[in-house]
Amino acid sequence: MSIDRDRLRWNGWGYRDRAFRLSPEQLSALVASLGARFGRPLVPGAPAAGLDGVQVPASRANSALLDRLSDVLAARDIRTSPRERALHAAGKSLPDLLRLRSGRLERAPDAVVYPRDPASVQRLLALAAELELAIVPFGGGTSVVGGVEPLLPEGKRALIALDTTELDRLLGFDRASSTATLQAGIDGPALEAALGEHGHTLGHFPQSFEHSTLGGWIATRSSGQQSDGYGGIDDMLVSARMLCPGGELQTLTVPRHASGPDLRELILGSEGALGVIVEATLRVRPAPAHHAVHGALFRDFAAGVDAVRELAGSGLPLTMMRLSDGEETELSLLLRRDPARRFDPSAAFLSAARGLGYAGERSLLLFGIESEDPKLGAMQLLRAQAICLRQRALPLGSAPGRSWQKERFATPYLRDLLLDQGAAIDTLETAFEWKDLLSGHARVVAALRDAASEHAGAGIAMGHLSHSYPDGACVYFIVIYPPAQDDPVEQWRRIKRVATEAIMDAGGTLSHHHGVGTDHQPWLAREKGPLGMQALRAIKAALDPSGVMNPGKLL
Amino acid sequence: MSIDRDRLRWNGWGYRDRAFRLSPEQLSALVASLGARFGRPLVPGAPAAGLDGVQVPASRANSALLDRLSDVLAARDIRTSPRERALHAAGKSLPDLLRLRSGRLERAPDAVVYPRDPASVQRLLALAAELELAIVPFGGGTSVVGGVEPLLPEGKRALIALDTTELDRLLGFDRASSTATLQAGIDGPALEAALGEHGHTLGHFPQSFEHSTLGGWIATRSSGQQSDGYGGIDDMLVSARMLCPGGELQTLTVPRHASGPDLRELILGSEGALGVIVEATLRVRPAPAHHAVHGALFRDFAAGVDAVRELAGSGLPLTMMRLSDGEETELSLLLRRDPARRFDPSAAFLSAARGLGYAGERSLLLFGIESEDPKLGAMQLLRAQAICLRQRALPLGSAPGRSWQKERFATPYLRDLLLDQGAAIDTLETAFEWKDLLSGHARVVAALRDAASEHAGAGIAMGHLSHSYPDGACVYFIVIYPPAQDDPVEQWRRIKRVATEAIMDAGGTLSHHHGVGTDHQPWLAREKGPLGMQALRAIKAALDPSGVMNPGKLL
Repeated sequence: MSIDRDRLRWNGWGYRDRAFRLSPEQLSALVASLGARFGRPLVPGAPAAGLDGVQVPASRANSALLDRLSDVLAARDIRTSPRERALHAAGKSLPDLLRLRSGRLERAPDAVVYPRDPASVQRLLALAAELELAIVPFGGGTSVVGGVEPLLPEGKRALIALDTTELDRLLGFDRASSTATLQAGIDGPALEAALGEHGHTLGHFPQSFEHSTLGGWIATRSSGQQSDGYGGIDDMLVSARMLCPGGELQTLTVPRHASGPDLRELILGSEGALGVIVEATLRVRPAPAHHAVHGALFRDFAAGVDAVRELAGSGLPLTMMRLSDGEETELSLLLRRDPARRFDPSAAFLSAARGLGYAGERSLLLFGIESEDPKLGAMQLLRAQAICLRQRALPLGSAPGRSWQKERFATPYLRDLLLDQGAAIDTLETAFEWKDLLSGHARVVAALRDAASEHAGAGIAMGHLSHSYPDGACVYFIVIYPPAQDDPVEQWRRIKRVATEAIMDAGGTLSHHHGVGTDHQPWLAREKGPLGMQALRAIKAALDPSGVMNPGKLL
Repeated sequence: MSIDRDRLRWNGWGYRDRAFRLSPEQLSALVASLGARFGRPLVPGAPAAGLDGVQVPASRANSALLDRLSDVLAARDIRTSPRERALHAAGKSLPDLLRLRSGRLERAPDAVVYPRDPASVQRLLALAAELELAIVPFGGGTSVVGGVEPLLPEGKRALIALDTTELDRLLGFDRASSTATLQAGIDGPALEAALGEHGHTLGHFPQSFEHSTLGGWIATRSSGQQSDGYGGIDDMLVSARMLCPGGELQTLTVPRHASGPDLRELILGSEGALGVIVEATLRVRPAPAHHAVHGALFRDFAAGVDAVRELAGSGLPLTMMRLSDGEETELSLLLRRDPARRFDPSAAFLSAARGLGYAGERSLLLFGIESEDPKLGAMQLLRAQAICLRQRALPLGSAPGRSWQKERFATPYLRDLLLDQGAAIDTLETAFEWKDLLSGHARVVAALRDAASEHAGAGIAMGHLSHSYPDGACVYFIVIYPPAQDDPVEQWRRIKRVATEAIMDAGGTLSHHHGVGTDHQPWLAREKGPLGMQALRAIKAALDPSGVMNPGKLL
């Protein structure tokens, strides 16, 4: 069953019948608080345009082209309606939403195709090379870095979005080896359901989990919320099959090899620019027996970072750790506080905590721990808590963890809600070594705040640490500012540029788990170096000699 | 301090003053046992030739070339003596030893150079491109797959061995991030000593540990004896710097990234054929508090495999697991038994075990477990033992583990001892998914035994499982046979060919941790596929456009 895009917001996040849960009172409090921080009330933007009246450029897919497409695909799998083209015209980044909400799209694919088997994909790629077409592989379409942007380069006659979501079958489950082979267009819930029938899980839960596909996870080197325990998609991927205009790349299915460079790494992070990932074999695990998420409150972010660093090196079976900085801690407490309730026990607790010195810069940690054996698990939890206590943390028990688990996929909905109210939220992320982490965090938060001030007149910025390793961690940043009425995309671009420069200056990577896409591409040479880019160009030329695949991405 | 090759056997393994510890009685028993298995007594070969009289071909390094070399390197760092050239003429594979022992070398590098800084390496590579020289990077020289074979291709005028062992400094230790940056020519003991001064360890202990270098570990995608806990070198490597004729590749030092394909994987497994690895940043750990190796005896190999598979998926902090098949179990018991001792308690115990049904196919497991916390460690050991007991294992306590730890780097010395006595030992290894492991093991052991029978008239073959993963494990094979008097290298090649075909037919990889080298190169296209090879050729052309680096390896 492929993704049902009718159930989804075409110009926002997620399911149409779901939204970020805030009571009217909570929303008013949030809007008032942001207005106070910006020094002026929020100005609600124009209402978002509907899909029915969407304006897309005329399709370049003429009847001759459609005839040739129908040689390689069934007619029902070739679509050119404005609706289909608009649904495949953008990802889910802030600038994507800003453009989609305007209802006028400057770019869209000329046709959308839904191949139902790898052979159709291979035929399509051959046809694309022959007819000088460009192909954009499109899975869930949740890229937040412009990864599915339909960029038609000079010399190409039309651009086709290749929707992979009909390639959604479980091909094999190997209980002895604890691996599963799946087609790459399967989305997160379908994948977990298929593995669940065998009592197993992949354990890959990016925030996009409900709407993104296995192929997208691999193509972007994605990492999920439980990566501290389960690893990133690169750790889960045993082997993969990628169809390229130059042929087929199938890596060997073995647990490890020393047979020269690992070609899985030409598939991981390939960003649709080298080929179409059609199948993958993944390490899976029995569903865990015991999993709990606990909270702890630190006096400041630095104390929390010290604890997380020690936890990450401890060997304890932690599945996730998320440490909010002071600003994010206050925002998440604000979102949880209900002004309509007469007595709010958590508000009372936090006010008591304030009296104990947990104020101002206080920093909230959520950590998940998993065990097969309850007795061993209890002992491991105690050890984790002892590490937090050494940094003078206040244990918060499992209540904050329960609300996180309930809302773990819900945060992106807040972006749409706030855009309606007149506030833009953008998120970006990087990874630092521990030695650079505190200074990098401070530098990027300051850069975001200054850039929002300069380009939007006001703004707040914050961050949290997630995805920890013995040698460093991911830092995820959030900036909230009033969007410009005239050219909000250009305004965004200016803020993004400042933030990206700050990340690179601080020693971070362009992306820990979102990918390169269109948005980070201008900086890629700075991360990879001249010889690295030369190697990437050589790989591209070998796998995609006529430049069919996802133009403007990666190279 | 670079490797002191005067202390090492030039035509055998390891230190000249060290040998495999067997009493004269034990050696006689072993020789008799092998003779009985072969159906004829062993015939000691001709004594190995000395280094002083070694015959090497005339050097192609004429005075014009040496003049140019002395523009980029100090005169003392350019060496052309037959001794130096012979010391860099081969690795440590069985065919290498067979050729070295003959005292007549068909091939040797024309000169050996010892650059003392990365800038000298870069100058040398530029000179090599200009003068049409070939360069073979040479670290410890312990390759067992022909990785340092001095192959001069057509069109090249001379071949230079680039000895990396003067590049042996610790460049930085980052306590906050638990990483260390080292020059790549440092050898195992020097690396551990440097880290030990900071109370840390890398935890990478391949059997070659005492004689191999960090650069060699990276170039071959090496994996150490404690990889179950510490991972392979690919897991430890944060970033690296490789100097190539086409420029310099330096990857970013961050714990993880999603910035497109991971270019570390052009350095890992590069086999000296893409560039010279000069520096690397590695994850290091505090030296462990508690480490113990325990033994267990299974009724047969299959029961042991089931236990190891469960242990590998259990999440317990196991550092190593080594499970011998029936044949290897008997050989290792034979090597441990001392016929001169009147009462041998371990022999008595084993004979008692035989009475309990642990006979014939019995299979010995050694497993190491490590913990920071003694109480937690004890509980984890109990859980590991319970998994073994479910497969009806007999616990052997920590005595077999202690002798393994004492002898862990000693086994290769046995090969020289037996070559003197008239028996050749070759070892090869692969990795299988668990579902293919038992059948793959049986198939390769049978192929080795049959090939030895056909090409040597007799032989025995055995294997053990090591380096386990949730989805599969490495299987390491040993074949022992009487070497031919006339052309033992050709005889070896025939046996090797049969074994390699059997490995690939059974679904295994060409190598789990030894690398490709010259010996596996003919099969590489079978593992990588046509498009994979095309990608590798494109990478080679980008990094080494004029084909300077390690000709005949990888491509």
